[in-house]
Amino acid sequence: MTEPDFEKGGGLAVAIAQDYRSGEVLMQAFINADAWQETLSTGRAVYWSRSRRQLWRKGETSGNVQIVHEVLIDCDNDSVIYKVEQIGGAACHTGHRSCFFRRVTPDGETAEISKPVFEPEKVYGKK
Amino acid sequence: MTEPDFEKGGGLAVAIAQDYRSGEVLMQAFINADAWQETLSTGRAVYWSRSRRQLWRKGETSGNVQIVHEVLIDCDNDSVIYKVEQIGGAACHTGHRSCFFRRVTPDGETAEISKPVFEPEKVYGKK
Repeated sequence: MTEPDFEKGGGLAVAIAQDYRSGEVLMQAFINADAWQETLSTGRAVYWSRSRRQLWRKGETSGNVQIVHEVLIDCDNDSVIYKVEQIGGAACHTGHRSCFFRRVTPDGETAEISKPVFEPEKVYGKK
Repeated sequence: MTEPDFEKGGGLAVAIAQDYRSGEVLMQAFINADAWQETLSTGRAVYWSRSRRQLWRKGETSGNVQIVHEVLIDCDNDSVIYKVEQIGGAACHTGHRSCFFRRVTPDGETAEISKPVFEPEKVYGKK
């Protein structure tokens, strides 16, 4: 039985959500032991919100849950990948499909590389 | 000019190395401000080793550097993706192409989903 090493990160491990078909990285968040267990048992991605200090059942507000098709763990057990099916088409609260929607140039400038797929205010009720 | 928010993670942000062609996630590590700047200026992936507490110029020992083709940053600036070309064919010290070479089943069992592409002792001189 393999469990992430939560001690190394002060109770948290890294979780990466990746589209199960395209391989696009949709978001990165953190998990604690409860989030990990609930993800495995429910098949829906659950994280730990560092800012709100509570379990974050992705899609609980918006309905845009992440159905977990596969879970991978890395060589030193401190990072996991959730291969997910993103309901609603977008993982990011900005309405972008991926939270990683900005490219950084070598001089530190950023440029958006995609457009939002939904309007956040319509999904969340506010910006 | 956009810089990762290193404060939120106690001086560290998350970095995800993704194959720039296939989209496979190769590894996840952490960066501090120095690692970030050196990555941008050299075009080679540099991380911060939490265990050794020093800059980790990926491939410095093995020669298996990561050439950075593109850098993405997430919506709240605490996580970046390096789209890399992995020299030597493997990112993992175990010889696997990706550090995420184990699948976790819902009951917590793991199974290897790939075979190593090199023998670690030949690349690093020891296991």
